[in-house]
Parts: sequence; C-alpha cells; structure tokens
Amino acid sequence: MTSREKHDRMANAIRFLSMDAVEKANSGHPGLPMGAADIATVLYTRFLKHDPSTPSWADRDRFVLSAGHGSMLLYSLLYLTGYEDITIDEIKNFRQLGSRTAGHPEYGHAAGIETTTGPLGQGIANSVGMALAERILNAKFGDDLVDHYTYVLAGDGCLMEGISQEAIALAGHLKLNKLIVFWDDNGISIDGAVSLSDSTDQPARFAASGWNTTRVDGHDPDAIAAAIQAAQKSDRPTLIACKTTIGFGAPTRAGTNKAHGSPLGAEEIAGARKALNWPYPPFEVPSEILDDWRLAGLNAGKKRKDWEDRLAAAESEVRAEFERRMRGELPGGFDETIVEYKRKLAADKPKVATRKSSEMALEVINGVVPETIGGSADLTGSNNTKTSQTKPITPGDYGGRYVYYGIREHGMAAAMNGMALHGGVIPYSGTFLTFSDYARPAMRLASLMGIRVIFVMTHDSIGLGEDGPTHQPVEHLAALRAIPNHLVFRPADATEAAECWQLALEQTKAPSTLALTRQNLPAIRTDFVEENLCAYGAYELATAEGEAAVTIFASGSEVEIALAARTQLQAHGHPTRVVSVPCFELFEQQSESYKAALIGTAPVKVGIEAAIRLGWDRFIGTDGIFVGMHGFGASAPIEALYKHFGITAEDTVKAVEARLHPKAG
Amino acid sequence: MTSREKHDRMANAIRFLSMDAVEKANSGHPGLPMGAADIATVLYTRFLKHDPSTPSWADRDRFVLSAGHGSMLLYSLLYLTGYEDITIDEIKNFRQLGSRTAGHPEYGHAAGIETTTGPLGQGIANSVGMALAERILNAKFGDDLVDHYTYVLAGDGCLMEGISQEAIALAGHLKLNKLIVFWDDNGISIDGAVSLSDSTDQPARFAASGWNTTRVDGHDPDAIAAAIQAAQKSDRPTLIACKTTIGFGAPTRAGTNKAHGSPLGAEEIAGARKALNWPYPPFEVPSEILDDWRLAGLNAGKKRKDWEDRLAAAESEVRAEFERRMRGELPGGFDETIVEYKRKLAADKPKVATRKSSEMALEVINGVVPETIGGSADLTGSNNTKTSQTKPITPGDYGGRYVYYGIREHGMAAAMNGMALHGGVIPYSGTFLTFSDYARPAMRLASLMGIRVIFVMTHDSIGLGEDGPTHQPVEHLAALRAIPNHLVFRPADATEAAECWQLALEQTKAPSTLALTRQNLPAIRTDFVEENLCAYGAYELATAEGEAAVTIFASGSEVEIALAARTQLQAHGHPTRVVSVPCFELFEQQSESYKAALIGTAPVKVGIEAAIRLGWDRFIGTDGIFVGMHGFGASAPIEALYKHFGITAEDTVKAVEARLHPKAG
Repeated sequence: MTSREKHDRMANAIRFLSMDAVEKANSGHPGLPMGAADIATVLYTRFLKHDPSTPSWADRDRFVLSAGHGSMLLYSLLYLTGYEDITIDEIKNFRQLGSRTAGHPEYGHAAGIETTTGPLGQGIANSVGMALAERILNAKFGDDLVDHYTYVLAGDGCLMEGISQEAIALAGHLKLNKLIVFWDDNGISIDGAVSLSDSTDQPARFAASGWNTTRVDGHDPDAIAAAIQAAQKSDRPTLIACKTTIGFGAPTRAGTNKAHGSPLGAEEIAGARKALNWPYPPFEVPSEILDDWRLAGLNAGKKRKDWEDRLAAAESEVRAEFERRMRGELPGGFDETIVEYKRKLAADKPKVATRKSSEMALEVINGVVPETIGGSADLTGSNNTKTSQTKPITPGDYGGRYVYYGIREHGMAAAMNGMALHGGVIPYSGTFLTFSDYARPAMRLASLMGIRVIFVMTHDSIGLGEDGPTHQPVEHLAALRAIPNHLVFRPADATEAAECWQLALEQTKAPSTLALTRQNLPAIRTDFVEENLCAYGAYELATAEGEAAVTIFASGSEVEIALAARTQLQAHGHPTRVVSVPCFELFEQQSESYKAALIGTAPVKVGIEAAIRLGWDRFIGTDGIFVGMHGFGASAPIEALYKHFGITAEDTVKAVEARLHPKAG
Repeated sequence: MTSREKHDRMANAIRFLSMDAVEKANSGHPGLPMGAADIATVLYTRFLKHDPSTPSWADRDRFVLSAGHGSMLLYSLLYLTGYEDITIDEIKNFRQLGSRTAGHPEYGHAAGIETTTGPLGQGIANSVGMALAERILNAKFGDDLVDHYTYVLAGDGCLMEGISQEAIALAGHLKLNKLIVFWDDNGISIDGAVSLSDSTDQPARFAASGWNTTRVDGHDPDAIAAAIQAAQKSDRPTLIACKTTIGFGAPTRAGTNKAHGSPLGAEEIAGARKALNWPYPPFEVPSEILDDWRLAGLNAGKKRKDWEDRLAAAESEVRAEFERRMRGELPGGFDETIVEYKRKLAADKPKVATRKSSEMALEVINGVVPETIGGSADLTGSNNTKTSQTKPITPGDYGGRYVYYGIREHGMAAAMNGMALHGGVIPYSGTFLTFSDYARPAMRLASLMGIRVIFVMTHDSIGLGEDGPTHQPVEHLAALRAIPNHLVFRPADATEAAECWQLALEQTKAPSTLALTRQNLPAIRTDFVEENLCAYGAYELATAEGEAAVTIFASGSEVEIALAARTQLQAHGHPTRVVSVPCFELFEQQSESYKAALIGTAPVKVGIEAAIRLGWDRFIGTDGIFVGMHGFGASAPIEALYKHFGITAEDTVKAVEARLHPKAG
C-alpha cells in the first residue's frame, strides 16, 4: 500500500464516522468533516504534538475547530487517535442527551476539545489568545517547557464574521508566528455558493494584516504537509488556504450546500461507500485502519515523555511555579495580601472612582500574582487596567504583561477566553460597560465554558456624563446578569473593589465582570472587616436605628445615595437599613435563611441603581420602589443627569415618604 | 485671496468652533474635527448635495460621521452651512442637558444628523445600508428621482472594529459604487500611536474586498477634491485614505493622543489661534467667512430645486408611490389584508413552526407592501425570510428585494439601520435568536434612534434541539426585552405571528424583534377575531371555568403547554386561565386598569417560557411559579430537552398542585 493509499483510507474513516453519526442522529453537519478530512489527517498523523493517553499536558499543540458545526471531524479524530473520552459508543450517541459528543464541541465534555465552538469566528479569535499565552509563557519559562503550535480550522463563516478581522489584525500585529490557520475554502455556505454574499480575496486580506499566506489543494496530503512545514518556519502567523470539496465523496451532494447541514440519507451514503471504496458497515473502522490511527496517536505522544523529562530536569522552583500556574492556583499568601490591603484602605478611606479602586487593587494583585495579563480595548487610561508591573507586550517581545488590544472588544474577549483555556495566565481587560455588547458573544461562551476571564467594564452608568446615551449603559447590568454562570460585580468603594477582585480571581469556574464607575465615590466600608463581605453577594451595610421601616438595596455608585437617604429618613423618624448588593449571582448562592434574613421584613423596600429595574424585584418585590433609569440616558454633566433622572437621596426619600404616608403624598 | 486661503479660513472656522465648544463644555474630542476639517470643508463646499433650508429632501447625499466622537465637526458644518437646528447657542451648549449638540451625534436631535454614531464601526456599516437603499430605490424610480452619494468619515477605531469588515466585504461584494469612505488616517488612537495595536495596510484590506482605493494628503484640498471626483466615477465603492494630523493647528498636542479626547486648555488654544492666524474670540466666525459657508450651503441647495422639478414632472402615480414610501407610510388596505389573512388562518388552523408562520405572513405582506427588503445572515432556509416576491439583489443589479447578507449578523443589523434611516424601504432580516448577541450593538442603536427595523430571530429556545447550548438562547429574550424602546414579539401560532408582523410594520418609532420557533406548534387562536389581540401585549386566551384558582402566563411555544396544563388542572377541579404574552413592551403601554385586570387575582400564578425567569415576576410576582430554564441548554432532540428541563404540562400541573395542596405535595 502506498502512503497515499494509507492516507486515503485513514481520511475516509473520518468521513464515514461523520456520515454515519449524522445519519443516526438524523441531525448534524457531514459536509465539513468529509471535506476537511485530508487536512485533519495530515495534521493529526504527521504534525500535531499531542498525547491521547495524557491529553492535558501543558505543552501540547492546540487544535481549534473554529468551524464548530463540523464537530464530527474532531470527535472522529479523538476516537481514532485513542482519546478514552470518545468511544465508539459516544460517536453513536452523537447529539443525544448526556453524550460527550454534543452538536457542537463543548469544552469540558471530553479531553481534546480545547474550546467550545459553533458561534462562528470565536474559535479563530480564541486561538489568537492561545498562541499569545504560549508566547508569554515561553518568554517566562523558555523553549524547554513551552514551545508549541496552535492550529485552527476555520470555514468561510468564521472569516465572514467581523470578529475574525479583529483576531487576524491582532495576531498579525503581534507576529504570533506559531499560529497556523487552515481555511477550509470549499466555496459553499448554507444559502448556497459563497459567491452569493462574498467576493473577498481572503489571502490578500490576511496578508494586509501581516500574515504569511499560501494556497494548497486541500485534498493533496503532501501539499498540505509541505505548507505546514513552511508555516512552522514563518516569522508571521500563517494562513493556509485549502481548496476543498464540501462533502467530499458524496456522489450527488459533494460540492453543494446540500452536503452542509443535514444527514445525507441512506442512498447518498451508500453511493459514498462505493465511490470511496469503503465496504464496511456503519461505525465500523477495520482494525488495520484503526491501528494506523492509534499508532499515529501513540507516536505523537512520545514528545510528551521528552517534555516531561525536561520538566523534571528544570529547577525545582521553576517547575513548581510552572505547575502552579498551569493548575490555575493563585500563589500562596494571596488572601493575606488582600486582607492587609483592606486594612490599609480602612485607614486611608480613599474617595476615588471604582475604576481607580480597581487599579489600586490591581496594583496590589499584580505584585503578587505574576500570571495576570492585563489589557484594554484602547481605553487604558480610562479603564485603569495598567499597573506598574505590566510592561506592554510588543510584536516579537512577549515578556510583558499588558496587551494593547486595539479597538476590538469582541476579539479581545475571545482572545482572553483563549488565554484562559490555554492556562498558565489569568487574563483581564477593559472597555466601557456599554461596549460589553460588542463582546457579548465571547462573554457568553466564557460563561458556558466556565473559565476564569475577568472583564473590567468601566463607565458603568449615566455617571459617565457628557458622552451621552450611546456610551451610557442602562440595560447592560441586567443583560449581563441574565447570562448564566457569569458573575457581575458592582463594587461601591475601594474596599468592595478589592473584595470583588479577590472573588473574581478565586472563581476558577466562571468569568466575572467588574462594573466600575467613572466618577469618584466616598469610602462606605470605613471599618476594617477581615471577612470578604462581597462574597455574600449582598450584605447589610448599615442597620436601622430601631425596627426597620425601610430597607434600601443599592449597588455601586448608588450605595452612597442609599446611605444619604437613610440618614434623612432616620432623621424623619423612619428606621432604615441599607443593603449593599455587589453581586446578584453570589447572593443567590447563599442559604435560604441568609437570603430571607437579608431581604428582611421592612414594609417598604427600595432598590437604587442607575440602570433599569429588571432583576431588582428579587430584592424589593414587584411592589417595591425602584429609583433608577426607565429608558436611555442623555448627554450632560453627571450632576445634571442624576438630578434629571431623579436618582438622588432626595428623590428616594420623597418616594419612600409618599409610600409611608400615602395621604400626605 | 486665493482659493486655498479661502479654504483654509473656512476649515479653520470648524477647528475653532470645535476647540471652543469642547473647551466650554470641558469635555469632548477636538482632535478629529481639527484634523478632518479640510476633508469636511472640501466635501461640504464642493461636492455634498444637500440643502440646509430643506434638510430632509429625499435625494440628498448622505454624510455619516462614523467617528462620532468628532461630533463637533458635524455640528460645525451644520451651523456654518445654515441648518437652522444648529445655532451658535447650540454650539455653545455642546454636551449640555437638552441641547441638540449631544456628546455624540444623536439622530433626531437635529436635521443633518443622518444617524447616531459613537459606538465605533456602526456608521460605516449604516452607510452600506444607505448606499444599498439608494440603489434599490434607484432601480425602482430611476435616476431622476434617486441618484445620490453616501459619504462616510471613518477613523482608525471604526476600521479596527470587526463590524467594519462585515460592512466592507458586503459593500465590495454588492459593488455599491456610490459609497465613498474617507479614512481619517491620523495614526493616533486613545492609547497612543495606532502602531501600538495595529499594523494593517488598510487600503490593501479594502482592495481585497473589491474596493477602489486611493491615498491623499488629508490637508490638501485639491488632492481631496480630485480623489472625490475619481471616486464618483468608480464602478466600485471607494476608500480615500487621507493622511491627516490629529488636532491640526494645536501647537504642542497636534499629532498626539493628547489632542484626541479632552479639552486642549486655554494656552494650547491660544497657541492654535496664533498658529492658524485666527484672532477672533471664542465662537465668533467673522461674517465674511460665515458668508462663504452660508453661500456654499445655498449653492448646494440648488440641486434640490432641480430635483423637485423632476419629481413634479413625474407621473402622478409614480410620484405618489415615491412620496408614500419616503414618508414611511404603509400602502392603503394593508390592515384589511391582514384581517382577511387572519380569517383564512382561523379556518385553516395550520400546525406549523412560527418561523413558517412568519414566512406565511410575509408572503401576504410582501405582496402588498412593495418596500420590504428581506434577507438573512446565511440562514435563508432556516429563518424563512424569503418569499415568492423577493428576488435576490446581486452585484450591480438592485431590482431585487432580498439580500444575502452572508455570515455577518452585526453588519447586517447595522446595514438595516442604514436602510431604515435612508427611508423608502423597510428592512427585515434573520438569524438565529442566540446570534442576536452578535448584532446587539446595532440593535441597541436602532432602539435609541427609534427606527423601524425588523429582526427575525428564529430557533428561539432549546426547541432548536441538537445544535446544543451554543445555539440555544436562554437569556436572549430577557436581554432584548431589557433594551429600551425595543419591541420583542414571541408569537404562539400563525395568527399571532400575523398580528405581530402587523404591529412591527406599523410601529414606525421603534425596532422589533420577532422570536420564532424552529418546531411546529398547533393553532391556538382557532376563532377568528378581527381585532389585533397582540396589540395588547398580553391578553386572556382561555378563561377559567369558574373563579380562577390559577392563571398561567406563557409566550410562544409554551402557550401550547399552558393550554394543556389548564385542561389537566381544570379536570382536577382547579379553574385555570391562560394568558398569552406575545409582547412585554406593548403590555406595559396598556392602561393600569387593563394591566391589573389581566394579571388578575388568582391565588396561584405561573409563568412558562423556555428561557430564564428574568422579567416574568412582572406577571407572576416574586412568589409565582416559573416553569422555564435555570441555566444553559444541552444538545439533544427537542422532546428529550423539554422533558429534561421540566418544561411540560405535567411539570406545570405538579408544581401548581404542590402549591395548592402543600401538605399533599
């Protein structure tokens, strides 16, 4: 048998597993796995540094299936090369409840799935973060411990999504030369030919952002291999445009959109069996072909053993630090550092914006947590994300800890996801809260994957003032709180900011958003408390003098207003509690008794947040008083806005007293 | 005085109005107006077809300031050329509460502001929709009535945002040759030099998507003029890369990021006055310079009179149709057509998915409303947005009514905004509801601007089945309902779908989202009712047999479950009402008495929606029973999912009975 024949039958194993699984599930996308089988076979049998027996070793190459709908390609590869998570039964259970083989690759379902993909363009942007994390760790730990490639398979959809441009431009700028992207150039999208909607010369577009580009026949194994070899030597990231036939082997549907997203049907599959000379029953891969695949997996794994030898030979401190980072554990003493810092804050009582409080906390954190990597989408001075420790990362020099992401919120968020997925670094970066909308698809995926990514979102209300309603979030807190498994923190002062940062960093199974003010705020936590009170999500900040007639719940910049309203109400004889609510999600995780006690029984409940009411009924009930926004903001100085929209202590007192004395009102 | 001297002093008028206004507001962005003043002066004095005295005439050229932070450039131009909305007092009130001169240009605040910009990249994407609308109307009404350019001024930020790629690729593909983009290539972003974060060769990038490109000195009026002349003759859209100096004229800050986003300060402004030979006090434009500007405005306006003559000479039917479309009025008889269609539905009782119901409604609508322009982000067959009337629009042929937007949800939404802003067409287009996240920044702007854009969002729950959690919206209904001035419709059957479409089309001051199922649903409105019941937002669909013990509120696909639960509950002796809730926002607009009566006094209130609870407390109270999702979905067939997540009539009955008989439960 020639090597080409061997290649072909190995690639055909992918094709038939994919066809058969989609057919059995009666749902799925056979076209991509069939079209890209040759590329994947070359990559997984000749190049990819991975070890199916120890899938999570740190210096493996990363493979990202950005075109996640082609999930059967990845599941086939994992099964064939011997990953124990993906058995033939899992393949047979494709797209069924509880299977590891979900419709799209889901991070955490099985080893070898490096990221969750499906929403197009996300994978290619994740890969930029992975490739960057690799270079950052390489700069710190050297070639012996960190030296791997990141490979991506992207489709036309990935490249049409705007996020891909942000990813391409950032990777090209940073000269991430160990990033290699295969474009599955099959000329077909769901609606038909790509030419219905696009005329872009993709290699020219990549080249315009500093990429190395090449074109190959995506069904010619040697051409693909030669392109990968050349790409590995490039000083720039590489696009390998692979001309392929979608649904390769399907007698009537190959090369058409009918191969893309639905089962081929028994007749078509029978035709493919004939055309590709594959006389085996569904889900059966003959042992000699499976052996070839397993051997490829075994051979690839040898590099892991060499790497482990090098790791064992490293200085024990270096090894310990490397392993700590890769486990995602914070350095010892981190908690104590935060407590000491809080002690200082209680003494200093700084009156600063929470974006500044965040910077102050970061200055402490970055001093003791060397794996944090900061950044901003071109709002460094506004987001306050840069500290004394975070030298910029520049093209070709990855020894820094700060990324100038450019005006690319979406690509930034997805790159941060990739960094967190890679491991060894903890990414945080900023933009304005209103522009969380731009980053939202990636923020959702961080939540779905359950990864530690920290989004620093400043200018978190009408408090940003003159920039006006386009820049003033009103619905964004509610909209982010709506995302499952996403912690939204809105600290009220420097102490709460420190506590929220601690919680965000300690939370390894969920991303966090910190919503921070532009405007200065007084210290509200003036007494030192060792315990992290924000960990409760909501806590009593000020008790009522007497049995509470009123409880005011508030977050962030409006806690100051709540406290002022309390003072006035108590002066008028209405005992009033104030509850600070830095994090809805953590509050929901508390015991029922804690939650009931905190909400309490005061007859009048008030919520104050310079945002819409949505979500606040949880605290104040549907009959509670809400002091906040009822629509979009406006362009004006901050004082004028708070007054105009009635978000003041006086407005609060008035509303409460109208409720307490309805006839007087 | 040479023409260059005249140009310079006219451009300097922009520069000083901008500097002075930012200084007085103590807030704003002087750098762009100063840097782009020459480009703007050439455009507004030599090319732009507009009429300050009649700003809204249909065939004016559109100018979009995509770099919206440079708002003072636009306000200066409008003041100088004589738009009565922008007086010198408005300029002096820049960024103050209630002024027309908001921090960023706000559509509706003043004539001449063609779109709201500020969130970067939106303007350039809006302009693609404007240029497309122009070509569509031109194809229908001919050169005499519709023949204008769309000009855009974009900054580095606009071009870094991913949405710009979607816009560029779409415009290039469609050969929108009357679109001319000026790139204010000043090499500066907020963080410093653009080279901190980007190395893209922008003209090469545009050329890769089929644009005509050219480079000029952005301070050389004749070079700018020559480039515009050449661009006007191009058969492709044109990028004019204009090398400029940000903050041109500022003695120490020009060419640096210190000119970008904050007042220059008295000293720097004094230096600029010297450097540019502008000895006049703040806000004073000498009458001879103002006269030159006003004359330019006057001259530009002459083309409007010629156009009005042509319009007057057109056939009366053509003229009437053109004017109707531009007013945004639906054709006479539209309401009756919907009523007749509903009569047919009540007879037919189709059991179809609401995406199919939507298509059926569209088939009726598109037959009588010729200005609808459909489309999809490469999910035509899934979104069901194409009807028999909507022939595709292709490069160079704009006689169709359907746009293959490609996999570009964000660019699509922003282009639809541009089409609606242009007027004369009503855009609707589709993607999956989960991908509304990709389009969200543009959807928010549609809401803020209050324009009629219709987003068709199918596959609106776990009901999409096997594609899994990446494709299953759970938080998206809540997140979209959170956006002010955005109608979110979730019809329950074909009749509700028809009513929701009618409401979306009749709503000229807000965008609408239609959330539609993948799966089939039974007819729930089996009796013909002439009135549009969805207009109430929520209405009683089924009364209780006896005094209601239970009210079930549900939307969309879960109304079927609510009705089944009602049947079971009533069989168990619990009188149960069912309220269908197709639109939260319209419900809130009803009278207090209607709302109170609809919510009613049944002791047990239940909400059912295959999504998160957020927002439903409005109907069921904080102690109501919610049957829905509590986190992300999963990949499995639909029946397995609804059962797995407990969204069934049986689960509902069980929960209600546990509440009614707590001890038995």
